[in-house]
Amino acid sequence: MNYSTTTIGALRKAIAQFIRERDWEQFHSPKNLSMAVSIEAAELMELFQWMEVDEARRKSRLPRLRKKIEEEIADIAIYTLSLCHTLGLDLSSCIEKKIAKNRKKYPV
Amino acid sequence: MNYSTTTIGALRKAIAQFIRERDWEQFHSPKNLSMAVSIEAAELMELFQWMEVDEARRKSRLPRLRKKIEEEIADIAIYTLSLCHTLGLDLSSCIEKKIAKNRKKYPV
Amino acid sequence: MNYSTTTIGALRKAIAQFIRERDWEQFHSPKNLSMAVSIEAAELMELFQWMEVDEARRKSRLPRLRKKIEEEIADIAIYTLSLCHTLGLDLSSCIEKKIAKNRKKYPV
Amino acid sequence: MNYSTTTIGALRKAIAQFIRERDWEQFHSPKNLSMAVSIEAAELMELFQWMEVDEARRKSRLPRLRKKIEEEIADIAIYTLSLCHTLGLDLSSCIEKKIAKNRKKYPV
Repeated sequence: MNYSTTTIGALRKAIAQFIRERDWEQFHSPKNLSMAVSIEAAELMELFQWMEVDEARRKSRLPRLRKKIEEEIADIAIYTLSLCHTLGLDLSSCIEKKIAKNRKKYPV
Repeated sequence: MNYSTTTIGALRKAIAQFIRERDWEQFHSPKNLSMAVSIEAAELMELFQWMEVDEARRKSRLPRLRKKIEEEIADIAIYTLSLCHTLGLDLSSCIEKKIAKNRKKYPV
Repeated sequence: MNYSTTTIGALRKAIAQFIRERDWEQFHSPKNLSMAVSIEAAELMELFQWMEVDEARRKSRLPRLRKKIEEEIADIAIYTLSLCHTLGLDLSSCIEKKIAKNRKKYPV
Repeated sequence: MNYSTTTIGALRKAIAQFIRERDWEQFHSPKNLSMAVSIEAAELMELFQWMEVDEARRKSRLPRLRKKIEEEIADIAIYTLSLCHTLGLDLSSCIEKKIAKNRKKYPV
């Protein structure tokens, strides 16, 4: 399995540039971006909507479905990073703080 | 603004370890994880539910709301990375491919 | 404005028949139907995604958008009634109980 | 099973009165209400989040879970009817038109 060496900063920078080039900052209010993340998350769910839990596990290995999953996951992450960009938040430190909190909430 | 040098790989590794220690792989079917992402995305939206678009922009600067946003964003990212882990997907390459596709779809 | 005389019972009956004729009961687990409602709700949101709050109010009067709203609202209601059918719940009594509860929670 | 004789019109009227008494029309833009429906739908999903499809079917018979399902279903329906009220739409005719359309799309 691939443990990517791409940094969160590099991804956010690429997304910020994409937004700026298209002059989309005006639409990127936290309210609108939270809706965007939610809509993309629903599109991801739609891929598994009528499947059994195990069936979803199995079929996710098939290239056709896998490609769709990759695209929906990317959309969710892109809007999440866009929101971080708009608000000046560092996603990696958000994640690290939450994992530390979860470690206390759910001890091994 | 902070451009984090944390890698996607390092985050995924931390999340994978957290899951393994708690023996949660059994629940982490793609179907269930897609629901989890969607539920967390709804919790993020809830923070802005009754606000005007500009009001959400303004209030997101307040420390109290900001802290909640950070936590919800972290939850979305953690479940998205958990799904990548379950399926052996590299999130950074998913994002890069999608940005390239979006560049063609929405030319400057 | 139209205050429909169609009963909740009549609507649920029509939906139940539609499902039975297609032998879809097998897919209509509460889990799957809850996903279906959520996915349709996201499609409704998508219609207003990048609009200002007032803009959404104004544009909802336009026949083209109105028609789409009607269809998404119908999908949400159909899956909600399908879930009531699967579980043997009476939607109108659920609503009445909830309004009574809300009256106490949010006094005039 | 109960086939309720409560009409859609009566439910919408009760909801409209509840909103008017609290002066909440100002928040009830179609954009905000679509978010509200989506958030409530996510709360419904959350009840089944980590269950197998069949497990959700079985556990939905238990009074404790059943009560929670009833409340979430009511919230979804209340916001959907609030949206119909705001836009002057008749939910029953939306549903009937959609069922007719679905009959053509998915013949028996």
